[in-house]
Amino acid sequence: MFEKEGLKLQTLIVVAHPNIADSPTQQFLKASLPDADVIWHDLSSEGQFDRQRELHLLAQADRIIFQFPFYWYSAPFILKKWQDEVFGGEQGQYQFLAGKQLALVVSLGQSLARYQSGGSEHYAMSELLRPYQAFADKLGWHYRAPLLISHFAYSTEVEKQALLIRYQQFLTMDDPTNFAAQGDWLVAQLEKMATAHPTQAANVSLVSEQLTTQLEQYRDLIWQVSQIKQGEKD
Amino acid sequence: MFEKEGLKLQTLIVVAHPNIADSPTQQFLKASLPDADVIWHDLSSEGQFDRQRELHLLAQADRIIFQFPFYWYSAPFILKKWQDEVFGGEQGQYQFLAGKQLALVVSLGQSLARYQSGGSEHYAMSELLRPYQAFADKLGWHYRAPLLISHFAYSTEVEKQALLIRYQQFLTMDDPTNFAAQGDWLVAQLEKMATAHPTQAANVSLVSEQLTTQLEQYRDLIWQVSQIKQGEKD
Repeated sequence: MFEKEGLKLQTLIVVAHPNIADSPTQQFLKASLPDADVIWHDLSSEGQFDRQRELHLLAQADRIIFQFPFYWYSAPFILKKWQDEVFGGEQGQYQFLAGKQLALVVSLGQSLARYQSGGSEHYAMSELLRPYQAFADKLGWHYRAPLLISHFAYSTEVEKQALLIRYQQFLTMDDPTNFAAQGDWLVAQLEKMATAHPTQAANVSLVSEQLTTQLEQYRDLIWQVSQIKQGEKD
Repeated sequence: MFEKEGLKLQTLIVVAHPNIADSPTQQFLKASLPDADVIWHDLSSEGQFDRQRELHLLAQADRIIFQFPFYWYSAPFILKKWQDEVFGGEQGQYQFLAGKQLALVVSLGQSLARYQSGGSEHYAMSELLRPYQAFADKLGWHYRAPLLISHFAYSTEVEKQALLIRYQQFLTMDDPTNFAAQGDWLVAQLEKMATAHPTQAANVSLVSEQLTTQLEQYRDLIWQVSQIKQGEKD
């Protein structure tokens, strides 16, 4: 799943937070990073960004994540500082970065339901995040649906475990909303787990086999439905 | 027109630009400021903002203008730094600032026609500026239609004079799109001109009188139309 012409997909996580050490959400996400090729890039720098160094980092990545808490309907200012300083001048000069993915991981202090027409925040997240979408469009980057984390502080342990899986999938999968791809991802994780924990291998393998069987049944079902539809057309 | 319970309306212009001295647009706007109570507040500060000082400035103003060039679909980072640092913590504590107006003056390197569905910038300015609208909503400020200045560098002298008037009206009028109010504003300006330049007073008064007559006819026309509509209902 991480393969692309024989090379692993690199994910660059650009983290914009005024104080990552004091943020339970950012600390949780940092501890949840997958083993895959992921670079955690904290923007908490003083002074100007080193433009060449930042562009070099971006050039190496296939997937770029902007990760931040939602302050006044956008990222903390440090992300805009980074955008302004790294992407100055003529837009054509960034052609060598075209074709990358941009995905946002945004943590919200409010519940998501408030962000809609008629909700107390009035506007949908899709609208409020338009400047980032337009940024991606302009650079020829593919803008993906964001991962929105609301009310992390009130999450139960089970919800946190679910978030960990969603986050890892988000960082490493091209389409985390695809059900079968999610299943494949889980099977791959379980196989890794079995190798890492030999004493648990038998249990883990059992779960993995059941999941594999279910995924086969799911794909078979999709195939049958497609055949029926084909028949209707004839 | 500037009166409100006997006090003049204060306009606070919060200017966010990395280098105002080198910006022909910002220099032109600065030179175009009306005599009325307007504070030009340049954010080009180093280090943290003095929160109490900024809140004090805001408290004195009835109308707040965010003035900036459009960099990557929002203001240069310094405005977000100001928002983050001045408006931290609990939102309820800013209740004493409720009821103010927020208006944006945005200069664009692209023509306005590009900012729409099907245009090369894909999104309307109304969409891209949503974060500022949501900011105003949250603080209980009245968000006004922005003044958008595109391609200032290619403006003719006549276009620049027109912009000067539009800008002055924008800073001092509650509804700069109201035709009759624009006329009243012009008459007031002409009367000021006549006082300031006694040798030209006769000419200026002539223009002013003609304009006043036209405005009276315009208002009479609106009254007649309203009477006709009334009649239709009876």
